[in-house]
This record gives sequence, structure tokens and C-alpha cells, in this order.
Amino acid sequence: MNKVFVHDQLIRFSHCDPAAIVYFPRFFDLAHATMEDWFANAVGFPLPDLIVKRRVGTPTVSIHCDFSKPLRMGDTLRFELRVTKLGNASANFEYRGMKDGSEHLRITQTVVFMNLDAARAVPIPEDVRSAIEPFLATAANTPL
Amino acid sequence: MNKVFVHDQLIRFSHCDPAAIVYFPRFFDLAHATMEDWFANAVGFPLPDLIVKRRVGTPTVSIHCDFSKPLRMGDTLRFELRVTKLGNASANFEYRGMKDGSEHLRITQTVVFMNLDAARAVPIPEDVRSAIEPFLATAANTPL
Amino acid sequence: MNKVFVHDQLIRFSHCDPAAIVYFPRFFDLAHATMEDWFANAVGFPLPDLIVKRRVGTPTVSIHCDFSKPLRMGDTLRFELRVTKLGNASANFEYRGMKDGSEHLRITQTVVFMNLDAARAVPIPEDVRSAIEPFLATAANTPL
Amino acid sequence: MNKVFVHDQLIRFSHCDPAAIVYFPRFFDLAHATMEDWFANAVGFPLPDLIVKRRVGTPTVSIHCDFSKPLRMGDTLRFELRVTKLGNASANFEYRGMKDGSEHLRITQTVVFMNLDAARAVPIPEDVRSAIEPFLATAANTPL
Repeated sequence: MNKVFVHDQLIRFSHCDPAAIVYFPRFFDLAHATMEDWFANAVGFPLPDLIVKRRVGTPTVSIHCDFSKPLRMGDTLRFELRVTKLGNASANFEYRGMKDGSEHLRITQTVVFMNLDAARAVPIPEDVRSAIEPFLATAANTPL
Repeated sequence: MNKVFVHDQLIRFSHCDPAAIVYFPRFFDLAHATMEDWFANAVGFPLPDLIVKRRVGTPTVSIHCDFSKPLRMGDTLRFELRVTKLGNASANFEYRGMKDGSEHLRITQTVVFMNLDAARAVPIPEDVRSAIEPFLATAANTPL
Repeated sequence: MNKVFVHDQLIRFSHCDPAAIVYFPRFFDLAHATMEDWFANAVGFPLPDLIVKRRVGTPTVSIHCDFSKPLRMGDTLRFELRVTKLGNASANFEYRGMKDGSEHLRITQTVVFMNLDAARAVPIPEDVRSAIEPFLATAANTPL
Repeated sequence: MNKVFVHDQLIRFSHCDPAAIVYFPRFFDLAHATMEDWFANAVGFPLPDLIVKRRVGTPTVSIHCDFSKPLRMGDTLRFELRVTKLGNASANFEYRGMKDGSEHLRITQTVVFMNLDAARAVPIPEDVRSAIEPFLATAANTPL
């Protein structure tokens, strides 16, 4: 329980806008990359395998982000990924976006596990669920 | 009051992922395009002018999206943009994402008006505020 | 013969980089949008239909771009699309990227028609070929 | 002389299109990331520093790419970066895009060194040039 997946990404030229800060939609792409690496390297079930071999995807049904401080090219964005709820067919994630120990943004996301051929939610496969459970943690109890 | 800005965008090949539906972070980019066209064509103050000439930007401080149905390439996404709150230095937007009269996603966003040189929030310029006020409307009172 | 497809796109905030000019990889996405609209509105065979119903795609095998002048947010990029060669299973396109009557960039591209299930090049379908032929034109004979 | 910068990147979900292969414009973004990491980690002059502190950028004036085999999500793309020409104010790069020892794409690019305030080409700064010179190598003499 309470495992945290820590994931660093370099803020690149292409992430930034004419104000020289990250264009906010790209943070969701960076969070998705964190989720992909978490599935592959921490959970042990790479998303490409889940999608191609098992036909299970994890579409997002709800996402929220609060931004408190910008990031600039050359910065390193550290996402701390926690699982704050594990339902029958859904999971809630929290991504705290840190720079130098200070939180710059926080994303909360709900995904469902979906059979991609039937386009229907399905229970999280048991082997995947077991590998996710150690990451169950309490959401931040203070707003960003 | 209660004006709604209606904005259509074609869902393109490049918006879609290997599941052949829109990759969700791109909806935020599509919403930003709607906001840009609203500023330019409905409010009458193009963002590039605000940014370059007046050094006023509109960074996002909070954004939320609920997704209920996917969109596919070839679909037309219609965003209905409403202003649900107008503060001293901030504005709240609601984007209802429609396809064929049915709501597929809904985004709510808070932006602040910021002096880009001082990197500090500033009151919404009076001429811009006057042009925004007709779009003040009530937020959807039912969840998506 | 010699028909030209003229296609205007607004340069948006999200296309631009910290130098406030278009980040060059996005020009290829803008050219792809032009090709999509040409297929849909000029040739009369929308790519989503070709891909989903006929399982024919048009992957790029070669692309080249010369950039002579930058574009900025708020600019309108006009692509003039010409077909400079029509092979058995391939087509060559030229996109002259204009702003205010002056050429800012030029892209040349070769695509192949591919059966997406077999992942193999196929002859251009006859009905599609007939609709493309009017756009056959001579490539620019002067470098950008 | 003849140093090669080897750079691995994971092909992600967001890089891929509805045909489940990389959407080709994203390869140019991946190549730019390789150039950024080369500047930062091999040349020793991070681009953000060059841009922000010295006001020197490296806009692309010409780029070409041949694609021979697709890449899919979960693949690792290895770019081998070589400098094939070093002019007074320009540099030519070659990126061989490898997967499992086989070349899937090849990009050749010309960039100029530009003073961003004057928007004018400038001689490559001497300290930067000295750090680039070891990477001068012969371009591939066979087409992809």
C-alpha cells in the first residue's frame, strides 16, 4: 500500500508556447506518458500489450487539473502518481506535478477499463488489479 | 446576456489514437482554438493582439472535463462556449462538446488575465470586459 | 488539368514555440489537414471513408520541406496543393505555403496507396484516380 | 571526428494514429528531442540556455525524410545523430532512425544559427563550434 510512482520528464522546446511556458494541454500528454511508464515499469503490464493482445484500453472519463505555477523549457517535471481509488472497472489517479520539491500542478483522473472490441467497461483483470493494489494511497487532503 | 458562441471543428486523422477515437488531451487544444476564435470573432479582441500588443495573456488556472461519448475522425465537434462567471481578473468558461445534438463532453475552465511582463494577474481591461459580458450565462445545472 | 486546391488555415497559439513562430513539425500536420480537406472537398473521397470503409490509407514515404520565412500566430497560412505526379500506386504532392501572396515554405511529399489490412501498396482505385487527375500540374520549376 | 550521438525514445500511444503506427509529423518532433538532448548532453550547451541567455536559436531551413518501415507503440526508436556539414552559420544533421538494428527512417536537416533578437543568421559561436566538431561525420552514401 501507499506506493508512489515517481516519474521525471524534461520540459522540451515543443512543450512551450509563445509565453515560453508549457502550453497546458501538453501536461495531459505528459501525465499520460507517466501512466504508460507506470503500467509498463511498475505494474508490469505495458499498455501496448493490454491494448493489442488483450484488447483492453483505459479511456479517461473524467479529468481535472489545477495549475499553480508554470514550468519552462529545461525544467524537469516530476509526477508523483498515486492510485486514490480502485473500483470494479475504474481507477482514480492523482498526479502531483513537482519541480524542485514544490508542487506546480495537480491532476486527478478517472479511467475505466474497457473492452475495445465491445466498447464496453469490463472488470479490471485480476492479475492487473493485484499489481495495481500496492499503489493505493490517500489523495492529497489539501487543495493545491 | 446569455449569448452562446457556437464553434464547429472537424475531427481529423491526427486527433485520433490507435483506438480510432480522439486522444483526450487534444480536446483541450480544440477548446483552446474555440476560445481563440471566440476572442477574435465574437469578443472582437484577437488573442495574438492581446498578447503581443497589450502583453495580456489568459493562462488557465483550473480545468475539468467529463467525457461521456467518444468522437471519431470525420465527426464534427461543436463546442458551445458560455461564460459562467466573470471575476475581477478571472473568467470561467463552459464548453459543451456536441455531436449531432448530443453532448459528448463538457469542459469547465478558469482563466486569469495576466500581465505577461510582470507575470501577475491584472483586472480584465474594461473594453474587453464589456465585450465579454453579453456571453455571461448560467452553467449547465445537470451533470453531463 | 492544372487545378489547384487552395486552403487557408489560421496559425494558432498552440502552433507557435517560445520564439513565437510556428514550430516546424506542425507545418506537416497543417499540410496533412490540407490533404484531408482536399480529399473530402475537392476529390470527393473523404480519407475517413477510404480508411474505414475501403481500408485504403495514404502513408507518406518521402517528404521534404524548405522554409524561407517564418509564420506567427494570427497569420493565415494558405497552402496551394498541386499533384505533381500520379503513379500506379503513388502520388506526389506539392504544397506552396503562402502568406499575403509571398511563399514562406514549400513541401513536397510522396504518398503510397496502401491496403491497410495487407499493409501492402495497391493501385490507386480507378474512381479515386479519375477524381485526382484534374489536379495534375507541373511542379514549381524554381527553388523556393 | 565521426562521433555518433545515439538516442533512444519510446514510441508512445500518443505518437500513433488510427492505423496504430506513428503519425509521420511526430517523427520530426522526436528528432528535435534528439537534437535537444545532443546539445544538452553531448555538446554541452543546452538549447534553453542558448535561447534564453545567449539569444541564439537554431531554426530549420530545410528538412527531408524518407520512411521505409513503420514504427508502432511500444517500439523503441533509436536515432543515430551525425553532423554531416558544419558551415559558418549552418549545420547539417543526419538522423538514422533504427529499430532492432534496422533503419526505418532517415531524416536530413539543415539548421541555421540565428540571433533571435535580430532575427538574422550569425556565425556559430566558437565554443559551440568546437564542441560540435567531433560529431562531424560522413553522410550515409546509400539511400535508405
